[in-house]
Amino acid sequence: MTDVNTQVKMRRHPVGDLTDDDFVVEETALPVPAAGQALVKVLYLSLDPYMRPMMDPLRSYIEPLKPGDLMPGTTVAEVIETTDPELPVGSVVVCSMGWQTHGLVTKDTCRIVDPSAGPLPAALSVLGMTGATAHYGLLELAKPKPGDTVVVTAASGAVGGVVGQIAKIKGCRVVGIAGGPAKCRYVVDELGFDACIDYKSDTFEQDLAAATPDYVDVLFENVGGPVLDAVLTRINDHARIALCGNISQYNAEEPYGIKGLRHLLMQRVTVYSFVIAEHREYWPGAIAELADWLGEGKIAYREDIADGIHNAPKAFRSMLAGGNFGKQLVNVGA
Amino acid sequence: MTDVNTQVKMRRHPVGDLTDDDFVVEETALPVPAAGQALVKVLYLSLDPYMRPMMDPLRSYIEPLKPGDLMPGTTVAEVIETTDPELPVGSVVVCSMGWQTHGLVTKDTCRIVDPSAGPLPAALSVLGMTGATAHYGLLELAKPKPGDTVVVTAASGAVGGVVGQIAKIKGCRVVGIAGGPAKCRYVVDELGFDACIDYKSDTFEQDLAAATPDYVDVLFENVGGPVLDAVLTRINDHARIALCGNISQYNAEEPYGIKGLRHLLMQRVTVYSFVIAEHREYWPGAIAELADWLGEGKIAYREDIADGIHNAPKAFRSMLAGGNFGKQLVNVGA
Repeated sequence: MTDVNTQVKMRRHPVGDLTDDDFVVEETALPVPAAGQALVKVLYLSLDPYMRPMMDPLRSYIEPLKPGDLMPGTTVAEVIETTDPELPVGSVVVCSMGWQTHGLVTKDTCRIVDPSAGPLPAALSVLGMTGATAHYGLLELAKPKPGDTVVVTAASGAVGGVVGQIAKIKGCRVVGIAGGPAKCRYVVDELGFDACIDYKSDTFEQDLAAATPDYVDVLFENVGGPVLDAVLTRINDHARIALCGNISQYNAEEPYGIKGLRHLLMQRVTVYSFVIAEHREYWPGAIAELADWLGEGKIAYREDIADGIHNAPKAFRSMLAGGNFGKQLVNVGA
Repeated sequence: MTDVNTQVKMRRHPVGDLTDDDFVVEETALPVPAAGQALVKVLYLSLDPYMRPMMDPLRSYIEPLKPGDLMPGTTVAEVIETTDPELPVGSVVVCSMGWQTHGLVTKDTCRIVDPSAGPLPAALSVLGMTGATAHYGLLELAKPKPGDTVVVTAASGAVGGVVGQIAKIKGCRVVGIAGGPAKCRYVVDELGFDACIDYKSDTFEQDLAAATPDYVDVLFENVGGPVLDAVLTRINDHARIALCGNISQYNAEEPYGIKGLRHLLMQRVTVYSFVIAEHREYWPGAIAELADWLGEGKIAYREDIADGIHNAPKAFRSMLAGGNFGKQLVNVGA
């Protein structure tokens, strides 16, 4: 057993695109569990777009990171030393260790998972925050009706892929938007969307119009920027937008200006912004339903797993640029 | 009695700022009422910002105007010839005659008003669409709580002035935004807002921040453009925006791009867009409550009345540029 904890910290507030110099990797001694605590070894780390705006020193829903802070994140980990019989050595837990190889938990800061219930990384994706986000934003906020046209941006991404498949289960026409032919094929062929439009294509606007002949009743928005403006030109009367992410703008030094406010007004649209961490009471029901759908083969998903905590910054930067294909994880022990 | 009906029509779709050449004044013979109809003489015409986007050949909540169409609008009118005993000569009605001096109504297309209940023009402002818009957007959609900070743009305008006064009745801190010191003084001194910020001032952003130390819980938005972006930098967690108008952009050839999408997301804001004409069932209750408040001296308002149907285009253009002071009407018979 190693006696070193490897941590990735934010070295400084980034300006524009992230670089290696925005992070610093440090090694410290393993922490020692006090009474009630257990020491865990992190197995998998979830990398999520929300981490990027946390790096900016701006007002947000949680305190922004300060230089020198550990990068945050949800993890799957294994107990390797314990003082609490309820957290025996060998237990597997979901916890928020952030970007490090080891850390301390108590039974109130983690949730024990049954490794036989399914692949461990799923607890960080379709059966975790990713799935809860998709379920809540689509079904609690945007409330699609059968026959509605639902557009999902970042459709091949972790959240988008689940959103579209739930919308299909609910009887909607589902149109994805993704970057490049390979992702678009995956969205249609493997995830079962009715269509997927490549936003990098020269004919993006025309393709989107052709794929939404009855306009757009629900938009599940993960991207922002010009893609959002394009969808707004197709928005239907009384449409609902679940505003979940703005990934195209997280690295932008000067944000893109959304020109389509007129469409919100003329089509009497409602825009719901949300952060799933504020709706913890919603998670268990949503995840149980997602587990059922997963068991019935109605939900497919893909993971993009980077090896080793040292590679977390590179994988994170790639994800922000759309370089991942499916849910981005780090196999921390690899 | 004249035998001429004077009408103002849209001559062409405008490009950018309106000009005289976008309108044409025509004289036609007075229409003759068929069975069930009455001929009315228009007394007052309401000029409202929503008319401007109707002049653009774009998808909207109602069919856009075509060149040669009569300009639309709500009116107060007097029956001068009738075939229906329920609409006797001399009755005063609220109807949608548009920009003309005469027209035909039936009892299903107008509402008889009691001239002794209050000044006639009020039926076109605080006790009409204006008041219903303010009441619905604020109380049904944005739902302010006592102590909330409510910001109202175009605060000296017809809708904005009523919104702020309702918010004061509901126990909120109310901050208006208006153009120039005279309008700002009126908003504070006569309408009773807690503060009013001049968006034309060099210190607008700083003044807005100083006036909203606890951030903004509710925004009633009539203006759009850079003023909206400025308020978004001050938006509070879980704020509600009633998106009612976008007057700063109605004449714009290239719309302003809203940069503050990030704030909607990070502060988990909900944006409600609405058009009051879709909520007719809401009007009677709202207008009854407004009439009570008016009678109790809790609601003040101001009208800006232009003389003569020929002056409607000029008054409309001035209103779009913020040149009016209070509800813009036309005394059609003057």
